[in-house]
Amino acid sequence: MINIVVKLDEWNLASPENIGEIAKRLIEEKKFGRNVVAVVPSSPPVNEGLEKIIYSLSDAPSERELDAIHSTNNQIASSLLSIAIQKRGFRAVSLTGWQLGMKTTRKLAGNARIHQVDGNVIIERFKKGEIIIVAGGQGVDDEGNITLLGAGGTDATAVAIAKSIDAERVEIYTDLDGVYTGDPNVVQQARKLKDITYDEMLELSYLGSKIVHPRAVELAKKFDIPIVVRSSTKNLRGTLIKGEIEMERNLIVRGVAYESDIIRFTVGYELLEKSSLANLFNTLAKHHVNVDIIVQSVMSEVKPTISFSIVKEDLTNAVKVLEEHKEELGFQFADFEVGLAKVSIVGSGMVSNPGVAGRMFARLCQENIPVKMVSTSEIKVSVVVPQDDMIRAANALHDEFNLAEEWV
Amino acid sequence: MINIVVKLDEWNLASPENIGEIAKRLIEEKKFGRNVVAVVPSSPPVNEGLEKIIYSLSDAPSERELDAIHSTNNQIASSLLSIAIQKRGFRAVSLTGWQLGMKTTRKLAGNARIHQVDGNVIIERFKKGEIIIVAGGQGVDDEGNITLLGAGGTDATAVAIAKSIDAERVEIYTDLDGVYTGDPNVVQQARKLKDITYDEMLELSYLGSKIVHPRAVELAKKFDIPIVVRSSTKNLRGTLIKGEIEMERNLIVRGVAYESDIIRFTVGYELLEKSSLANLFNTLAKHHVNVDIIVQSVMSEVKPTISFSIVKEDLTNAVKVLEEHKEELGFQFADFEVGLAKVSIVGSGMVSNPGVAGRMFARLCQENIPVKMVSTSEIKVSVVVPQDDMIRAANALHDEFNLAEEWV
Repeated sequence: MINIVVKLDEWNLASPENIGEIAKRLIEEKKFGRNVVAVVPSSPPVNEGLEKIIYSLSDAPSERELDAIHSTNNQIASSLLSIAIQKRGFRAVSLTGWQLGMKTTRKLAGNARIHQVDGNVIIERFKKGEIIIVAGGQGVDDEGNITLLGAGGTDATAVAIAKSIDAERVEIYTDLDGVYTGDPNVVQQARKLKDITYDEMLELSYLGSKIVHPRAVELAKKFDIPIVVRSSTKNLRGTLIKGEIEMERNLIVRGVAYESDIIRFTVGYELLEKSSLANLFNTLAKHHVNVDIIVQSVMSEVKPTISFSIVKEDLTNAVKVLEEHKEELGFQFADFEVGLAKVSIVGSGMVSNPGVAGRMFARLCQENIPVKMVSTSEIKVSVVVPQDDMIRAANALHDEFNLAEEWV
Repeated sequence: MINIVVKLDEWNLASPENIGEIAKRLIEEKKFGRNVVAVVPSSPPVNEGLEKIIYSLSDAPSERELDAIHSTNNQIASSLLSIAIQKRGFRAVSLTGWQLGMKTTRKLAGNARIHQVDGNVIIERFKKGEIIIVAGGQGVDDEGNITLLGAGGTDATAVAIAKSIDAERVEIYTDLDGVYTGDPNVVQQARKLKDITYDEMLELSYLGSKIVHPRAVELAKKFDIPIVVRSSTKNLRGTLIKGEIEMERNLIVRGVAYESDIIRFTVGYELLEKSSLANLFNTLAKHHVNVDIIVQSVMSEVKPTISFSIVKEDLTNAVKVLEEHKEELGFQFADFEVGLAKVSIVGSGMVSNPGVAGRMFARLCQENIPVKMVSTSEIKVSVVVPQDDMIRAANALHDEFNLAEEWV
């Protein structure tokens, strides 16, 4: 019997009816002869009454106790799903992070990271014929405190479990039925990809495709565990994420991604000598401002400037950090521009195709879309454009690289 | 520093205001130089929405998953109390059953029993100056399943922890401020006792005084751990439950207790030879009918009968069991009488005072209260009387044995 790990979508737990549906689907997998682990996502609807009580007790509740409280959310959800499976005459069991032996780092700053998973707990239960329902995104540190894995933690849980039980694959159930060449809601000709490499998926994930969290893709790449992205409600084929795709290596661009609400900061210096990239970005990082694209301009006839992009959520913080450290960082002025978006093309084939970026700029120019910033990696080119042009840019690039065609 | 274990009342967790109040009280204990463990009761208000969802998924959800879900109730409550303590500048930490190392038996039939508690977890945390908030009434079995201890489980948790950390005493916070000679709501002259023995408390507990569960008193007696019953809201003296009370050994009756909604069954046989106490009560026990008082009558001029008392909740079940086993049990008729109550007097001194029961019957006779059944133990006499006479009987007996007087 092969082992598979299924990461459920929040939708699968959203109502008793949905729980019944997903129970049936997991039973089908079991009947098909597979050992199934289902991972329940860590963010079911928050109990607002409870949150109110918490913050009426303290405006700064400790993270340890918050994690202990919030871990009960999908502990309950995983029991509910087990009950629904048992009702249909199959064996099922819910497991919390600590029951699973999900050891994590201590949560000193930010989220806990997975340290170790004990696959034997699951293997032993498989022998009893049980379908295993795991509360995802949670574990225990070496002091026995309940920890939450934070963003992407449920996806990472699924991959870590797959590794621990030598599973054939991880299936990620989503509201899409696979990975597309572009967002189907926006790019009219978007087409579902049959497969995609880990690296391409990583670039797409980071760029705002919320299907699989980059943390999980990185983990899957490290352990070479195939991920299948599938519909959470329909039994359709989906998209396979794996290592090198030999047959299609010569393809250039595999997908278009976009991200809205980008802000461009520009910091200007009187003299080039005064500017220090290291000082500026270390200071921003120390104060938790995530910087994405960085452009340095040192043309001789104007004062030197440094531009960088951040997401909207970090704006207030970035302004505060720059104001407080103006003296020390030695810059003359700082301003920012809002109403921008990032559009990117991704594809492993780019490495050996130096003309791709040029082709991208030419098409955007032809469409009268101004390019404000550029960033490139081996398998990605990103441009920052006015937010109003974002959707048009995504569609134009999808067309430019023939992504709608079947051979992609 | 001495260690104390406080078992909280549900009232202490009933609102954010109450949580704040109890946080302050525990901090006072800490300031006084005590290491404090507070045990949160396992039955906070049930989430009705959640129960509906559970039973919409299955009309017979598995006990394992129900326990897993319900254990989150006081896990959350103990985190809330920790947060309220931390807010006031003191260190606190919540611990679930598994974090505490509360090992229980497997839950094969009925409730899990405490098997072992690891006091070191608490001792280590005391060293950090933390007030420990424990989710009571829960643990893990040897397979790592979450188990609930059932009725009296929170009280038992408090005593088991006290044993494991060599605590000086267990304090039980209740809505009364101690153990009374009778229920103060009913017996007008009821008076708070300064102290009472484990055995007397056991009889009182079993008889419907819901202050401390018998399971906890038995455990405390076994390990000789003093229990103090105190008000959950006011800092009053309370009643001390301990071993032998030498000075007062000669006192006869220490308290009056009562229990309403008692049902008397009478089973009649054609011939004495056909009756078998063993058959009858084994059959009832096998079908979970709890029998309290048993009276056998074998007068020569009438047919032999056996009477026994049960609580209201077991009535339907008892009728069903008797019907289904009529043939096999060989009785001729069975009927039952409702609208009865049990009134008892309790006191260690009774052992050496054979006249106590007679004095009790005489007073009831004088009050025109008919006695339907009688049961005696070394430290208790119980009578079954009409429910309408229950309160009058309790007051009369309280008066008869001078329980209102200060020397009791």
